[in-house]
Order: sequence, then C-alpha cells, then structure tokens
Amino acid sequence: MDNNYEVVIIGGGPAGLTAGLYTARARLNSLLIEKGLFGGQITNAEWVENYPGFPEGISGPELGEYMHRQATKYELKTIVGEAIGIELQGEQKVVRTTEGDFITKVIVIAGGSDHRKLGVPGEDEFTGKGVSYCATCDAAFFREQPVAVVGGGDAAVTEALHLAKFASKVTVIHRRDQLRATRILQEKAFSEPKINFLWDSIVERIEGDDFAREIRLQQVKMRESSSLEVSGVFVSIGFEPDTGYLKGILPLDAVGHIITNEKMETEIAGILAAGDIRQNSARQAIAAAGDGATAAIFAEKYLTAQDIF
Amino acid sequence: MDNNYEVVIIGGGPAGLTAGLYTARARLNSLLIEKGLFGGQITNAEWVENYPGFPEGISGPELGEYMHRQATKYELKTIVGEAIGIELQGEQKVVRTTEGDFITKVIVIAGGSDHRKLGVPGEDEFTGKGVSYCATCDAAFFREQPVAVVGGGDAAVTEALHLAKFASKVTVIHRRDQLRATRILQEKAFSEPKINFLWDSIVERIEGDDFAREIRLQQVKMRESSSLEVSGVFVSIGFEPDTGYLKGILPLDAVGHIITNEKMETEIAGILAAGDIRQNSARQAIAAAGDGATAAIFAEKYLTAQDIF
Repeated sequence: MDNNYEVVIIGGGPAGLTAGLYTARARLNSLLIEKGLFGGQITNAEWVENYPGFPEGISGPELGEYMHRQATKYELKTIVGEAIGIELQGEQKVVRTTEGDFITKVIVIAGGSDHRKLGVPGEDEFTGKGVSYCATCDAAFFREQPVAVVGGGDAAVTEALHLAKFASKVTVIHRRDQLRATRILQEKAFSEPKINFLWDSIVERIEGDDFAREIRLQQVKMRESSSLEVSGVFVSIGFEPDTGYLKGILPLDAVGHIITNEKMETEIAGILAAGDIRQNSARQAIAAAGDGATAAIFAEKYLTAQDIF
Repeated sequence: MDNNYEVVIIGGGPAGLTAGLYTARARLNSLLIEKGLFGGQITNAEWVENYPGFPEGISGPELGEYMHRQATKYELKTIVGEAIGIELQGEQKVVRTTEGDFITKVIVIAGGSDHRKLGVPGEDEFTGKGVSYCATCDAAFFREQPVAVVGGGDAAVTEALHLAKFASKVTVIHRRDQLRATRILQEKAFSEPKINFLWDSIVERIEGDDFAREIRLQQVKMRESSSLEVSGVFVSIGFEPDTGYLKGILPLDAVGHIITNEKMETEIAGILAAGDIRQNSARQAIAAAGDGATAAIFAEKYLTAQDIF
C-alpha cells in the first residue's frame, strides 16, 4: 500500500467523509482513516430531521452510508485503523497509525468527540430509544412528555431550557446540591415552571421496554433510592474528544477540543480540523459536513500556494 | 403581519434556510426574508455532485426546493422582500426591508455573494451550459476538454491550476499583460504545460449551440479580434456581496464580505453571518448549510444567555 499522500484525513464521519469527497474530487491523493464505522456518530441516530435536503427526514445509518458511498466514488482511499500520533518533519507530516505510518503534506483531523456516558445499565440499550445526548436533535420527539436531563453545567441547563419548549416536564438530575451553570442560565431555569430539580442525585440505571420508561435514582446524601418516570433521558455531562495523541503538538482547549479559525485551520500550517472535534463545533451532522468542505477547500489552497512542485 | 421576532434571517439560500430550519425547530419565533428565489445560488446548478447525502448527485433546483420545504415545515415564516438597513436599539435590532420594519433580538445575515459577471452576450444564456463560476463544483464535467479561465488574480490562477487536473488545455484570458496573482501561484501556472495565457485580452461574447463552444475575444492593444474554441468558460473576476446596507454597522473586508469568527458571530452580539456572504466562506452549498446550522446554534445560545425574560 502506498504510504505517501497529499492529504490524510483522520475520521470517517460526516466531517471526514465530506473533506475526503472534496479533496478526492480535487484530484488530491487522499487517504481517510476510520477507527470504527464509516458514517460516524450519525449512524447512531434513528431518524434525522435536520439534515437539509431530506424534508421527510432520513435514517442515520442510511445518511452515513450515502455519505460514505459518495466520498469513495472519487478515488478516496480508506482504511480502518486508528491514528496514534502525528510528527512534523518540516512541511512534511507523518501520521502514525495502527496500520503503519503515512507521510503527507496536509492532515485534516475529523475524529469527532464522544459524549461522555453515564456508564449505567440501560444507557446503551436505550440510546436512540429514549436516551439521547442532543436536545437540539431530539427534543421534538418528546412533545408533551416528561423528560430528564442529567448534568449541572451550562450545557445541561441549556438543554433543559430547550426541552422545556417541547416536553410536559423537565427534571434536571444533578449529583451536587447546586448547578455549575452560569447565573443567568440558572435564573432562567429556576423561573421556568416546567423545569424542576433533583439535587444530590445520581442515575443508577435506566429501565423500560421498547423505549426508556423509568430512571432508578439514588439520593447520595440520604442514600435513598427512588425512581422517576420519563419518556426521555438527555445526558449532558461533557465530551471526550479523542485528541490525547495530539497533546503538545496542537493547541487544544481545556476539554481537549482542537482550536481552529473559521477556515478550519489550526495554528500549524497544513493541519486542519473539522466537525465535533474542534472547539465551538455546532455538533450537528450538517455543520460537520460543512466544516469538512471548508477544511478541504483551504487544504487545497494551502497546497496550491506551497512552494513544492 | 407580526413584526416582532426572536430571529430574523436575511437570505433564503442553503445558509439561510438551514439557519431557519434550526431556529424554527428550536421554537424560536423566526422570520426569513428572501429577495429572489428560495434556494439561492444552488438553484442555478444543473447538477450537484458534491452535496453529501446524494451519491448519485441531485439537480440544483431540486436540492433548493427540498431545503425550502424542510425549513418551512417547522413554522419558519418567510417573506419575499429585500433588506435595506439594520438599526441597533440596545439589545433590540430593527431590520428595515422593502416590506416594512421588523424588530428582532438576533439577525442572521445569509444574503450570499454573487460572482461578478463579465456582462457579455452569451454569458447568462450558457450559465450552467459551459459557463461556470466555480471550478471546484464543475471541473470534473470538463475532463479532457479545452476550457478557459477569465481573470488574473489569485482566485483565477487557483481555478486554472485546479482545472489543469481535468481539462485537456486551460487558457487564461486576462485583460492586462501580467497576473495579479501571488508569485508562487504564477510560477506554478507558468510551469504547468496544460496552461497557456492570452494577455491584454477581453471576452466580447460567448457563442454556442446547446452548450458554449466558442469565445470571441479582443486583443485590446492591437484591437484585433479572435476566437477560441472551448467547452467551458470559468469566470473568476471577483464577488459582489450585497452588503452595502451594512457599511458602517458591521466590519466588512475590502470586498464587502462580513467578518466572523468560527461560531459565525460578528463583532456585534446577536448579529451573525453565514454562507457565501462571510469572509473566508468555502463558497459551497454544503459549507453554507453548515454555517447556517452553526449560526443558529450560537444564536440560540446567545438568546438563552440573555438577561431578557
């Protein structure tokens, strides 16, 4: 296998596949590395209503498959493997992976960012069936139904306020006795009649039948168990971007997301990032795909302006 | 008609329609103003191969219609009219339009940016039939065929280098006797055997049958007429963003594009820009749609964090 490329793309979700679609169509010799499933996080979505172009909606796995098929139509090479390091050798870069080293002029990092999970029984089982990590995506499925949000930071309270426009009742479950969210968000949440709070409480398990129906809780100070009937559980306890191998090479924010400008460029010329892995990503499939196109366009501009013939 | 909104979106192309899809789905009271055709520039594209999700491609008008249908499914209000001014009244904003004034908390500007036209006979007639303003979009349709690029700046030379990977021959037509493009781009173009130059030359008309076939030229110093047989004419002489009404209110770049950060925020809180109208847009439908989602997400965050109940 050739190990010399113009562009290496790390990650095969909407951001990476779109970057690959664009660089391959631009006839740049391009390799895409995906460690799991092509299509990325979107393949976990039962139904996607907010990807423009599909007015009736589309299933997540189908959308992921379409993107994969479209990207690989244009001589994009793809492998399954994991990036484990990046090395800079002047204007040349080396991507170290479990499948060997690849030399390249441009790297587009599009490895996504997982939502941190609760790690309790029922969570995986009911993901997409009541358990969600994205109110923007899924709030509309829970009109006039009771839901819970797990978490206490800005993101969790923002999710709760968003959900209050749809759900009959929103219970915020937080393991401490006060929120970490900023003052204004707290005040808004406290004054919203649909939102109530369960303090000092942790989720022990999620139960249900075809869909999630009940959360089993523990009040940690009293050590009392209780349960809460809900149709939806929105988990909002942070992110886990897979950027450990980039520490010391690229500027990352406190959570580990990659800092870029509006061209998707990082501080290092020829290294770009796209999609959920970058700081201030909108964390939406359409935004990730857009980022991927933007990264590819500026990658091509970088290569065209390079003094390498 | 109600003239009080949470979000007013200016422009109904992929960026504006996606912003509207997202803000309406978030149950923000949203109005979208479009001065021409819903769907925007994408409706001029005969066939779109690089919008992820459609592996076989899709016609531009169809994609535009799908986006419009999807956005208006969720109580997004739309009107046909033209924005002619913006006024700031504290945290409240007023959008002045040909259809009256609208008061809003957030403005998303997504009015697009037209390519400057040559203004010669045949240009409009053959647009999408040989005349193109985007090599990234259309180069692949001209494999092993002769094409011309009109222009002499960085963009024109970049287009020519991109086209040289596909076309049999690329003729750059420039009205001066030297390029404005940066040195490295010039050197690359001069050393590319497929690229040649017609200096001091202007396009007088584009002729053809079903498709463009010939460019009629004038050598301006000698005042000599000539003609050039081509299958494609790529016009790359600049942009005309419709931002005259924003001068003095928002920071614009030299061309008139709106300056944003990677969250699509401008310098003014509550005013965002998305798509081709912003500086450093990738000028692609997918990137514009992604920008629209990003702008909507950060618009909602701005509203949620506002001290207005």
